[in-house]
Amino acid sequence: MAFTRPLSLPPGVTEQSFRNFIERIARTVPDVTIVESKDQFPDGGYLEQPSSHDPFYVQEKDHFIASAFVCPRSVDEVQDVVRAAGDFGIPLWPISLGRNLGYGGAAPRVRGSIVLNLGKHMNKILEVNVEGAYALVEPGVTFEALHNYLVEHNLRDKLWVDVPDLGGGSVLGNTLERGVGYTPYGDHFMMHSGLEIVLANGELLRTGMGALPAPKSETANATKLHEEPGNKCWQLFPYGFGPYNDGLFSQSNLGIVTKLGLGLMPAPGGYQSYLITIPGDEDLHKAVEIIRPLRLNNVIQNVPTLRYVLLDAGMMGHKSDYTSSKEPIDDATTDAIGKKLNLGRWNFYGALYGPEEIRSAMWKLIKTAFSAIAGAQFFFPEDVADPRAVLHNRANVLQGIPSYEELRWVDWVPNGAHVAFSPISRISGDDALRQYRLAKRRCREAGFDYMGTFTVGMREMHHIVEVVFDRSDAGQRRRAEKLIRDLIAECAALGWGEYRTHLAFMDQIAETYGWNDNAQMRFNETVKNALDPKGILAPGKSGVWPKRFLDLKAKL
Amino acid sequence: MAFTRPLSLPPGVTEQSFRNFIERIARTVPDVTIVESKDQFPDGGYLEQPSSHDPFYVQEKDHFIASAFVCPRSVDEVQDVVRAAGDFGIPLWPISLGRNLGYGGAAPRVRGSIVLNLGKHMNKILEVNVEGAYALVEPGVTFEALHNYLVEHNLRDKLWVDVPDLGGGSVLGNTLERGVGYTPYGDHFMMHSGLEIVLANGELLRTGMGALPAPKSETANATKLHEEPGNKCWQLFPYGFGPYNDGLFSQSNLGIVTKLGLGLMPAPGGYQSYLITIPGDEDLHKAVEIIRPLRLNNVIQNVPTLRYVLLDAGMMGHKSDYTSSKEPIDDATTDAIGKKLNLGRWNFYGALYGPEEIRSAMWKLIKTAFSAIAGAQFFFPEDVADPRAVLHNRANVLQGIPSYEELRWVDWVPNGAHVAFSPISRISGDDALRQYRLAKRRCREAGFDYMGTFTVGMREMHHIVEVVFDRSDAGQRRRAEKLIRDLIAECAALGWGEYRTHLAFMDQIAETYGWNDNAQMRFNETVKNALDPKGILAPGKSGVWPKRFLDLKAKL
Repeated sequence: MAFTRPLSLPPGVTEQSFRNFIERIARTVPDVTIVESKDQFPDGGYLEQPSSHDPFYVQEKDHFIASAFVCPRSVDEVQDVVRAAGDFGIPLWPISLGRNLGYGGAAPRVRGSIVLNLGKHMNKILEVNVEGAYALVEPGVTFEALHNYLVEHNLRDKLWVDVPDLGGGSVLGNTLERGVGYTPYGDHFMMHSGLEIVLANGELLRTGMGALPAPKSETANATKLHEEPGNKCWQLFPYGFGPYNDGLFSQSNLGIVTKLGLGLMPAPGGYQSYLITIPGDEDLHKAVEIIRPLRLNNVIQNVPTLRYVLLDAGMMGHKSDYTSSKEPIDDATTDAIGKKLNLGRWNFYGALYGPEEIRSAMWKLIKTAFSAIAGAQFFFPEDVADPRAVLHNRANVLQGIPSYEELRWVDWVPNGAHVAFSPISRISGDDALRQYRLAKRRCREAGFDYMGTFTVGMREMHHIVEVVFDRSDAGQRRRAEKLIRDLIAECAALGWGEYRTHLAFMDQIAETYGWNDNAQMRFNETVKNALDPKGILAPGKSGVWPKRFLDLKAKL
Repeated sequence: MAFTRPLSLPPGVTEQSFRNFIERIARTVPDVTIVESKDQFPDGGYLEQPSSHDPFYVQEKDHFIASAFVCPRSVDEVQDVVRAAGDFGIPLWPISLGRNLGYGGAAPRVRGSIVLNLGKHMNKILEVNVEGAYALVEPGVTFEALHNYLVEHNLRDKLWVDVPDLGGGSVLGNTLERGVGYTPYGDHFMMHSGLEIVLANGELLRTGMGALPAPKSETANATKLHEEPGNKCWQLFPYGFGPYNDGLFSQSNLGIVTKLGLGLMPAPGGYQSYLITIPGDEDLHKAVEIIRPLRLNNVIQNVPTLRYVLLDAGMMGHKSDYTSSKEPIDDATTDAIGKKLNLGRWNFYGALYGPEEIRSAMWKLIKTAFSAIAGAQFFFPEDVADPRAVLHNRANVLQGIPSYEELRWVDWVPNGAHVAFSPISRISGDDALRQYRLAKRRCREAGFDYMGTFTVGMREMHHIVEVVFDRSDAGQRRRAEKLIRDLIAECAALGWGEYRTHLAFMDQIAETYGWNDNAQMRFNETVKNALDPKGILAPGKSGVWPKRFLDLKAKL
């Protein structure tokens, strides 16, 4: 390939060294693109190929930008790239597909890193096992692709895949980032079994039962799906023998995961989604107190969501469809919007799974419990005529049918982008109400609408506050960034920490997890430096910096 | 304290150095006992205090033996001991309570290690949270103690604790060893949330949300249960932010866990245990094929067991009660014993959870499915008159009521001891039958009865083969050891690996997980040497050796 100078070189790397690296890897990996301009990959083209920058940039558009995209076709090629990166001291930023919307897209934490785009070519479903109810996938397999596989192979009556809000993300990437979906299999990381990882030294590791070689007889005649089949329990039993290392590779920069096993949900034999509208603003408290025991006892069988009305309004229209004001929408207008859309201030989306008798029994309990809230109303999809209504979309998502509709609220404002603030809390009315009040007040002070949702796990809630802003407006971007920083600090002081974040906030959040003089960070750094002494893998990811780049810590 | 010479010094440690270490720690930790003789702590006294050796020794009685028992009273004291061990290069072997029966008891892998007996004094239930359904415990809290706490505080109608076969083990120890129980919360490690760990450098780490400091207001007035309270989500959300490190501390020697959070099971609102007897030897195949879809679809809601009749016979009598022969019992006699005890060749113990309607619906499905096996019979506890019958014991265990009865089959032979071979397999009739045939043949060839049980997780089975031997008979011990070694090797070649093992077999099993030129072991060693450069924490545990003791690897 003809070498061109990238827009930005990796820190401390000379142009010559970068060039030598590119020339070396280009010998084995043909798909290499130097990023020469900030507009090289089109903005918002994230459903086709990743942008060369964060499509929802909070700083300048080219603040977090790669020097090149390298797209290996095989595990061998990944190993080649990693070894070359070690030799030339080039930081790599591995992505599966780089969707990661609201968290930085495909952009690297360290400007000028090489984005290692695993998913572009490595996108095979290696196995779907019906008896064991699992899949083994490469980084580029989307939720949609896995679902389509089930449909095409007439397996939907046997197996479902849990999908997150958007079906276009990587199954492997989402699981490693500890993303959630909305069926009973919503905790993707908990449901995974078995990883294959390229380490910083270029060596290949398989975790759990994958560390046990496959029996010889099966190796010989199982070449259809696997280049080399794994141990037959690799996707069935996550732990293996000795230290269980998988968690190390989640939200981390300790290795490049090239294969992931994931449990699929047995088709439950029946399904019914529902919406419960809750009119009163502060009935949030009551609702959460009702949800807790129902969820813990598995009467609410899935990961449900309690959504603020403006998030739903954003699915059904632009802000300008509801108000001519550009200011944050006040409470009276919010209620008027809810009334117009037949929604409550809060809207609870759940589903029932199993045969009719089971679903009826659960629904009776849920309905009785929520009836304690004055004005609560209950809907099945057939009760809701408006085809744009969020319930129709949730009816798909909650049964594992992928969707792209959740993107709609990003267009709440012109040139819409979003960044998320995502604290964890108890399933407690007090905590929910305090977090909501605080977040709403701060959002409004910063000039934004509060657009939040509580996603309810078995024992905790993810409160996802989506800050939607006009990315063409530098003032809005600055205010959005400051808002998130303020929320992180204020919530940390109250004992609430985030589960995941955008590139720009990783250092700040990592610092809030600073108990006992940053014991966790020192631990993470020790492990990082032992496994990646040259600091080439995703420096700064989750706030963990290798020794070599420590001077970049907490610097943007 | 007056210093006495131990029976065995740690390898490479002089008597003077050992003495200096003991004198230093004795300043702060009063409860220190030097092990002067192999009979210092009585054999079999494992329900009171741990023996100074493995009570079920497979080699010589004093083969795996400590030089001293050190029993700290607080986390501070644990830190003191660890720092002193670092200064003097003394290997420590931390135990919670040291029950660990069949896996080595309280004995250390490296002869002469200091046993750090955490549970003797650190045995507080720090919190039982009803709303969040969790407990936070110290190492010495037994399953029985936690259950008793629930009973004494009138919480049994709200919360259950999942218990393993024996109620006297440490909740923390069992969870970290990835032990299982038999309710829907049977996978203890999966249900845990939050660890506190003393690292090899003496520093204290809290994982997950525990790394986020508790809010100040709550720190001030929450002194009742905690010396210092944790973050309010520590026991609710396991992952925290960044790499999820908890798994590193399971079956491992990377830290000393001093606190563990565990999810408790919400009382299900109804319960019914059952037994299904399966007469035909090779109907094991059919039974497992029936179990797989029922388990995966949560019709079988718990972790059930499929037990070979001789294991149950051992609960109801000694071998000599059934036969005058000392030889392995043949098939005809096995069937006669089954007939006498009203049991099948295989006996399936499960339970139904929830309100009556749910239980009836599940039971109907289960009964219909198992009725495909000729001669299968169905029992509830009230159908079984014999008070010694195993169903009466399982009826307790499967609802989280601790029991000690499972120990009975150890007395199958005089001076009975046991050692377990525990491979993982698919839930597959083929795999079950192959493992059973192989294990039974090898057991009989070695002169032992096959006493096995299949414990069924969601997607895999733990096949637990208990080899019961007369520990006073050196020939039997040697044969038991060889039997286990042969089974490990033979099963590894067939793609089956063990989930847990006795001290004597850790190296051999770790080697079977040798995919890609022992990538996992090299990874584990890299992490070990980074976190414990002096090699003081449990060298050799799970086959992971620090650099310093590498010469002891695979040596007994």
